Amino acid sequence: MVHLIVIYDAKAERTRHYRTYLRRHLTHLQQSVFEGDVTAGTADEIRETMDGLVSESAYDAAVVYEVSSQSYLKREAYGDDPADDKHIL
Amino acid sequence: MVHLIVIYDAKAERTRHYRTYLRRHLTHLQQSVFEGDVTAGTADEIRETMDGLVSESAYDAAVVYEVSSQSYLKREAYGDDPADDKHIL
Repeated sequence: MVHLIVIYDAKAERTRHYRTYLRRHLTHLQQSVFEGDVTAGTADEIRETMDGLVSESAYDAAVVYEVSSQSYLKREAYGDDPADDKHIL
Repeated sequence: MVHLIVIYDAKAERTRHYRTYLRRHLTHLQQSVFEGDVTAGTADEIRETMDGLVSESAYDAAVVYEVSSQSYLKREAYGDDPADDKHIL
């Protein structure tokens, strides 16, 4: 498994495309940020899908961060953390 | 140096507190996402500041991700990437 953080920036009318897709694989952390553990294959699919969605609109942008193991990632959450109940870290 | 990704969620009237502070140390990637390389000391200061800001409002939340070396982080950007000119990765 690999750990992904996915962020995107899109006009209001396009955000649902990102959310509907990303919700299938990751936890919706806040606004335009998703996080979670997926297989390497799913990580590749997510990158391809982000590439495709972003190419549909000149305004859109996205970044997919991957860490091969959570042990490389120090994560400190402040306030409410939707990832808490998913035991992300 | 360590590599940080900082995300926050705050009501509109409070976002400037986060942006004004984070801009001093990191690149503003999009909406409520900042990223960049800082010293370990600055990373600790950023965590303390996020903790302090979040504690001021029940609604606010933030997550600070730290990767000790960029070699552990695979980063794919799609569309415009403000970090590009800062040679983040």
